[in-house]
Amino acid sequence: MVLVKIGGGRAINLEGVAGDLAALGQRAVLVHGANAWRDELGDRLGVASTVVTSASGYESVLTDEATVDLMLMAYAGLRNKRIVEALLRRGVKAVGLTGLDGGLVRGRRNAGIRSREGGKILVRRDLSAKPASVDEALLRLLLDAGVTPVLTVPIADEEGAAVNTENDEVVALLQGVLRAETVVQLIEAPGLLADRDDPASLLPRLAPSEVARWEERAEGRFKRKLHAISKLFASAPTRLVIADGRSEHPLRDALEGKGTVIQ
Amino acid sequence: MVLVKIGGGRAINLEGVAGDLAALGQRAVLVHGANAWRDELGDRLGVASTVVTSASGYESVLTDEATVDLMLMAYAGLRNKRIVEALLRRGVKAVGLTGLDGGLVRGRRNAGIRSREGGKILVRRDLSAKPASVDEALLRLLLDAGVTPVLTVPIADEEGAAVNTENDEVVALLQGVLRAETVVQLIEAPGLLADRDDPASLLPRLAPSEVARWEERAEGRFKRKLHAISKLFASAPTRLVIADGRSEHPLRDALEGKGTVIQ
Repeated sequence: MVLVKIGGGRAINLEGVAGDLAALGQRAVLVHGANAWRDELGDRLGVASTVVTSASGYESVLTDEATVDLMLMAYAGLRNKRIVEALLRRGVKAVGLTGLDGGLVRGRRNAGIRSREGGKILVRRDLSAKPASVDEALLRLLLDAGVTPVLTVPIADEEGAAVNTENDEVVALLQGVLRAETVVQLIEAPGLLADRDDPASLLPRLAPSEVARWEERAEGRFKRKLHAISKLFASAPTRLVIADGRSEHPLRDALEGKGTVIQ
Repeated sequence: MVLVKIGGGRAINLEGVAGDLAALGQRAVLVHGANAWRDELGDRLGVASTVVTSASGYESVLTDEATVDLMLMAYAGLRNKRIVEALLRRGVKAVGLTGLDGGLVRGRRNAGIRSREGGKILVRRDLSAKPASVDEALLRLLLDAGVTPVLTVPIADEEGAAVNTENDEVVALLQGVLRAETVVQLIEAPGLLADRDDPASLLPRLAPSEVARWEERAEGRFKRKLHAISKLFASAPTRLVIADGRSEHPLRDALEGKGTVIQ
């Protein structure tokens, strides 16, 4: 069993991933992002991200109904089905799902974002959640039938409503259930870099205990990714390979240990 | 077992359909359109439909890559997942799927559209297909697990590529496999009307043999719908109810025989 997270950038070699997965012939669950598609579609539709500054000074992106619609179009529509198509063309029986489908991934709604606006503290409603549970029976049913699930956001909140979440946290939650021997994260870089501007600064091997140290130094989305990696190791021991999704054989290379191996 | 086609208009009372389905407590397969969402999104994105006039004088809409992307966003993304969400909120374990997912619905690619352009006959590539086969095992697997499949376009062609098709023809194909006691079509009208501008001209009862006669008189999309209805009765005998999707209890009313019953 391999659990693969495909990053949401346009430079990921999807055809290569699909070819590798078909050749691999083992059980797989895929989770994917689509931020490049979401951002482009948001630009075309004039749907801007609403960034609010919390009372404690952190910036957060607010998820409202328009953002969820954008997510449905870009993640669940465009990208999810094109990944399914690429796999199907190679004979892999892929089924694309969001966390909503069958209530596969359910989360706990985040409290609204507290923001400071004109001297007042306001709580802005935020359609996002922390993933909390997976319908393992449905996942196993599909896997046992030879299906490769291809998962993405949104997920369902406690009431069954569509909400945003971090795909990396969905991967950590899934690994607690699936206990895959290897978890692969395909990104648009050779792996974890000591200096993010220097591709030659690849960290080839890392112990799970070292992740927290890198997390302290990191910023923004990368910090959040490292935090999700810590959660992944907390939920189930595995071999995690963070590898280049842009290469000719992204998945094959990753499974051979090219990239950053955390074990 | 009930097979329900939900039309692609905005006036369909989705909450009512979801509530009725939850109360019904029987096996169901849903197929839905989303043309209102596609048209609106196409307008916002500036993706126009390409209409070509065939050598024999018929107008056809050409499906190209941009149209398939639009379909993925509107049908597979926006509308499919909002239907799944409405059902999930009422405790119905719905899973949204396109024909691509698991290769559930496969079709035979249509030959390109032959069009007359400047005195020459050109064959324009058209990404559309006639639905030809259903993966019954996958469908039964889901139904037996208590899942309500929610299906829409695109479907897969012979190579596994995403292609357009008529949802009404998917319903006819599914009925050949599912043999539902009742097939319901929810539309934005009280049922089949003798005069389409007069809601009072509802045809309450029709024999399957009479459909062909109405088909001859009909025009455009409505003619195509009647043709698909003929196919439905050719594939498996059933009770078909064409009913108003805008009422408070669209599905309950339909199952009680309100609308046009063809039997």
